[in-house]
Amino acid sequence: MAAARPARARALLQQSVSARLQVRPPERGSEAQWVEVTNATALAGGLSCRLCLLCGSVKLEKKGQIQRGLVIYICFFKGADEDLVPKIVILTLILFLFAVDTLLNVKLSESENGEFVSVLDLPGDILIIPQATLGGKPKGRKMQYHSNIEKEKGLELYSQFVTLCEKELAANAKCMEAGVLVKHGTYGNRQVLKLDTNGPYTHLIEF
Amino acid sequence: MAAARPARARALLQQSVSARLQVRPPERGSEAQWVEVTNATALAGGLSCRLCLLCGSVKLEKKGQIQRGLVIYICFFKGADEDLVPKIVILTLILFLFAVDTLLNVKLSESENGEFVSVLDLPGDILIIPQATLGGKPKGRKMQYHSNIEKEKGLELYSQFVTLCEKELAANAKCMEAGVLVKHGTYGNRQVLKLDTNGPYTHLIEF
Repeated sequence: MAAARPARARALLQQSVSARLQVRPPERGSEAQWVEVTNATALAGGLSCRLCLLCGSVKLEKKGQIQRGLVIYICFFKGADEDLVPKIVILTLILFLFAVDTLLNVKLSESENGEFVSVLDLPGDILIIPQATLGGKPKGRKMQYHSNIEKEKGLELYSQFVTLCEKELAANAKCMEAGVLVKHGTYGNRQVLKLDTNGPYTHLIEF
Repeated sequence: MAAARPARARALLQQSVSARLQVRPPERGSEAQWVEVTNATALAGGLSCRLCLLCGSVKLEKKGQIQRGLVIYICFFKGADEDLVPKIVILTLILFLFAVDTLLNVKLSESENGEFVSVLDLPGDILIIPQATLGGKPKGRKMQYHSNIEKEKGLELYSQFVTLCEKELAANAKCMEAGVLVKHGTYGNRQVLKLDTNGPYTHLIEF
């Protein structure tokens, strides 16, 4: 990327026809839990569009899935945690607001009439996946993650990022009316993902 | 990325438990075709590793899939086509050899005993997906692809890239013995993908 300063965060976007993400791994006495969005409207929408109308009820089940949505893989780099310095709080907040605003408003979602609109304008559901491996750099035959933020700070930023996405959706009348929600993976867990696309249409955006 | 020169290519790597890619869209009188790898060994390997042994027969079917493999999304930028200038042919070839060597030898594949090894060392199957959208940059609410290589040149480089991957696998005794192969999407088509992961473990590598 041709950014003038090092990136604070790297986001990867893929479109989904349906997606299931494990939010809790299986443990003794309990099975794995998955995020699910069920929606008859989406199912009836056919496969002709990459991202179609989604207005579903959300529940946790053994085999959960999000349908017709935007999948955001997110990774934070060192330097993104400067909210620990009070003076920088506002700058970090502005960065975050800009990042969320860009991700949710960029026109990557194909509507039923073939136009590209934002996931908010569809409106479509959003699945956020913490993906620290996105910050890796090859060094010989191994990957190194020296640019990644420390785990505890990363968790804090990840939580803030999810909250901001939820707020942006909550402030959008069309999304609220349609009942779409932000779903997200569990920071630190292995992100067991099942993704079905009509073209992943993969994009990379750094902030 | 902290590269001293602009990147010539961007590759995204994801691990798969199984993957199916449409290599020909449905047309009048013919159904869509998908890449498939079937392998009883892989199926018996369980879900405990992100990338396990794959040694399957490859065939084209209506519902094809690659199992236990490495998915490489690839995008080429302007400047990667300098093989049109004879003097630069060798440099481009070196870049390509380096890129393929890195992608196939980086230790991102989790073996059955939990060690990370290269996809060649597993050995595992490889699915290459042309993904021009990876070269997009946000401009306001739209994505622009001004850095992407022209389509015809991109097709040429994509074909070379696939061929080099095939050659590297063919030169690897372990891979040949196991019968693993490189499968790839069709340049220019919508890449309809169905991906099942035990953790996509997403990495970005630029060259």
